[in-house]
Amino acid sequence: MRLSRYFLPLLKENPKEAEIVSHRLMLRAGMIRQQAAGIYSLLPLGLRVLENVCRVIREEQNRSGAIEILMPTIQPADLWRESSRYDDYGKEMLRITDRHERDLLYGPTNEEMVTDIFRSYVKSYKDLPLNLYHIQWKFRDEVRPRFGVMRGREFLMKDAYSFDLDYEGAKAAYNRMFVAYLRTFERLGLKSIPMRADTGPIGGDLSHEFIILAETGESQVFCDRAYLDMEVPGIDVDFRNDEEMASIVEKWTTPYAATDEMHDESDWSKTDESDRLSARGIEVGHIFHFGTKYSEPMGATVTGPDGKQHPVSMGSYGIGPTRLIAAIIEASHDDNGIIWPESVAPFGAAIVNMKPGDRGCDEFSDSIYEKLSNAGIDPLMDDTDQRAGAKFAAMDLIGLPWQVVVGPRGVASDVVEIKNRRTGDKQELSIDTAVHRIVGGA
Amino acid sequence: MRLSRYFLPLLKENPKEAEIVSHRLMLRAGMIRQQAAGIYSLLPLGLRVLENVCRVIREEQNRSGAIEILMPTIQPADLWRESSRYDDYGKEMLRITDRHERDLLYGPTNEEMVTDIFRSYVKSYKDLPLNLYHIQWKFRDEVRPRFGVMRGREFLMKDAYSFDLDYEGAKAAYNRMFVAYLRTFERLGLKSIPMRADTGPIGGDLSHEFIILAETGESQVFCDRAYLDMEVPGIDVDFRNDEEMASIVEKWTTPYAATDEMHDESDWSKTDESDRLSARGIEVGHIFHFGTKYSEPMGATVTGPDGKQHPVSMGSYGIGPTRLIAAIIEASHDDNGIIWPESVAPFGAAIVNMKPGDRGCDEFSDSIYEKLSNAGIDPLMDDTDQRAGAKFAAMDLIGLPWQVVVGPRGVASDVVEIKNRRTGDKQELSIDTAVHRIVGGA
Repeated sequence: MRLSRYFLPLLKENPKEAEIVSHRLMLRAGMIRQQAAGIYSLLPLGLRVLENVCRVIREEQNRSGAIEILMPTIQPADLWRESSRYDDYGKEMLRITDRHERDLLYGPTNEEMVTDIFRSYVKSYKDLPLNLYHIQWKFRDEVRPRFGVMRGREFLMKDAYSFDLDYEGAKAAYNRMFVAYLRTFERLGLKSIPMRADTGPIGGDLSHEFIILAETGESQVFCDRAYLDMEVPGIDVDFRNDEEMASIVEKWTTPYAATDEMHDESDWSKTDESDRLSARGIEVGHIFHFGTKYSEPMGATVTGPDGKQHPVSMGSYGIGPTRLIAAIIEASHDDNGIIWPESVAPFGAAIVNMKPGDRGCDEFSDSIYEKLSNAGIDPLMDDTDQRAGAKFAAMDLIGLPWQVVVGPRGVASDVVEIKNRRTGDKQELSIDTAVHRIVGGA
Repeated sequence: MRLSRYFLPLLKENPKEAEIVSHRLMLRAGMIRQQAAGIYSLLPLGLRVLENVCRVIREEQNRSGAIEILMPTIQPADLWRESSRYDDYGKEMLRITDRHERDLLYGPTNEEMVTDIFRSYVKSYKDLPLNLYHIQWKFRDEVRPRFGVMRGREFLMKDAYSFDLDYEGAKAAYNRMFVAYLRTFERLGLKSIPMRADTGPIGGDLSHEFIILAETGESQVFCDRAYLDMEVPGIDVDFRNDEEMASIVEKWTTPYAATDEMHDESDWSKTDESDRLSARGIEVGHIFHFGTKYSEPMGATVTGPDGKQHPVSMGSYGIGPTRLIAAIIEASHDDNGIIWPESVAPFGAAIVNMKPGDRGCDEFSDSIYEKLSNAGIDPLMDDTDQRAGAKFAAMDLIGLPWQVVVGPRGVASDVVEIKNRRTGDKQELSIDTAVHRIVGGA
């Protein structure tokens, strides 16, 4: 993409409404625009990151055996009356009446609707296990939305729902999703720690929040430092092996880790004092097992091997991709701006043409653009005539992993300068070596 | 994907609520489930088609120079008060009040919001032309939603918005989008005819609907048969060449074509009687030029080359991807089911293992699965133990372009049978020749 044809509205001033660094940087980097309290447009750069985040989530959901569907944003109130949550949910639910005076709502979550889909089609234990997920906009009418997309009202959520014949099957499904979450956050450049958590309005008896540590975290968390060095399962992990899944989950739930609500001082004191880590955390994922809480009242039953009807045992598994963007920035930035992990960077590299119109600079820039594109690295080329300082500041702000600077002096001696955004390391290299370095990623 | 692990809930009976063939086939093929009047879930097969449709739309939008953003579904009413449409829009607008008694609405379209984004950032004619699009859920509270996703209440829409300094620039933007639409529908396997159209609640003075001819079309349309043989611009068309764009649009708007509302009998009579085609049509796209209808009241102005402030000249451009799925089926099916164009097929081929558990059949099936996957053709493998007739009927119903049938007799003589879903042609071939035929697409 050429910057001269792109829409990248950077802000020079620090927006005063932004209290945390990710909100500030997303506004300054032209990623989002607020349209109402807690409701945002994603501008082109923000949308590219969101799509990359969703791609990683989707790949790991699919790998774990979950199947993607897409449920609507608007739901009939009657479904929620079946589970009794319509009255329980409170003011966070955005309630709507249509032209025929029917009660609708903007889905804050989808347990009821997915249970309705399940009961309509699935009748036998032979069709289990089943895990259906979707990535769809949700609305929760927070009293005080804040921190940009970190706590918005309209937000994107990946929510998966597992259906099994019994507790044992449901626990295996829970374990698969647990491992999928570990892998997802790792690929997004985040160190996540699964913590025992409260189940809240979803209900159930088993729940973990996946927390990343960050000073701006909304809640206090307590964990063993051992988590900081634990290795996340690799790409060869076998999601179809229940024992392997269970042993990974056991390993990741043995050291102490709990959110504020679930914190137990006497358990905590069993951890060596030097290993106790008390910090602020950001919730980036939340998984629940809740058994028959919805299947029983809603009649989602299957015929078991015994010929009898069994209400299915269910779990649900949420990740907020819009919130994840903010969490990634909280975890990866410096004074000059964002530092994107390669997996989610909106473009793979920046090409900064220092003198557009100069034949040599244009030729070098175009050549690098073409070579990077052909190698699958989508570059953003700054072909504008802004002054050098502004160009460098803009590229540091938007935080692409690499910057290739093409100037007249370099062109004269057949080199360009590449800079690694994370390390700040700069090198003068020939075009081909520069491209090779960027494609190789190191 | 293995069918035994997939979620493909086919219906054996014809659903009686479905009045048109696309609605019937989408329900029978397990693509959609109705959740409320005019509100649907997309099941896995339906979602795959939707994603393919969106991919084609996106590629052609990007090719034409439009830039993708993503605006929220919920909008503040105040924006619509600025354009005076809040009161004008009527009961189709889903109006919502939040917990703080603020007026919101579920966006039926986005002229106001995108104009707000524009005016917040763009100040100079030098930043034009600009065309921003998004693909987002819309809600229109139709009195009588019907025909499945053809006329739903919650539906996906790609809407693009162009901003230019003057009418000449806006006309060039209109032309680019006109050509992008011709290419988009062609790639989706549809023969679309641009017709002069009424501008309705969007407003403006220049508008075309893109219509495909189908017996189940909702409106009567009139056009010259010449359209049926006209060639759509190829991939080498230059969207940056305004003259080339204008000449294509001229060619495609010269023969008579009009929807019922715009039909003019005396103009129509100038077309040779033998060339006059009066038929039912389905609207699959609608483009508008409306100049300063929104930019003037909302203060979206730029500094011109003359140093003065000019309200920008705008157009908007809509395609409904969910509706397109239905339109494609209306245009491409037979008595046995859907016939997907390759560009949107949910899987590239079906592999029907006639005897799962038989070592030879399993080996052949797995080998074909792997070879097709490696060649970028995503296959669906029926590894279930249903009877042969049910397997064949299911695969015809879901309409993948190719079926590869692996049976014990074929395995014994080292062949499989491939069937082209569209032509019905069957051939016995070796595995490698079969894969080659499918990958080659003919």
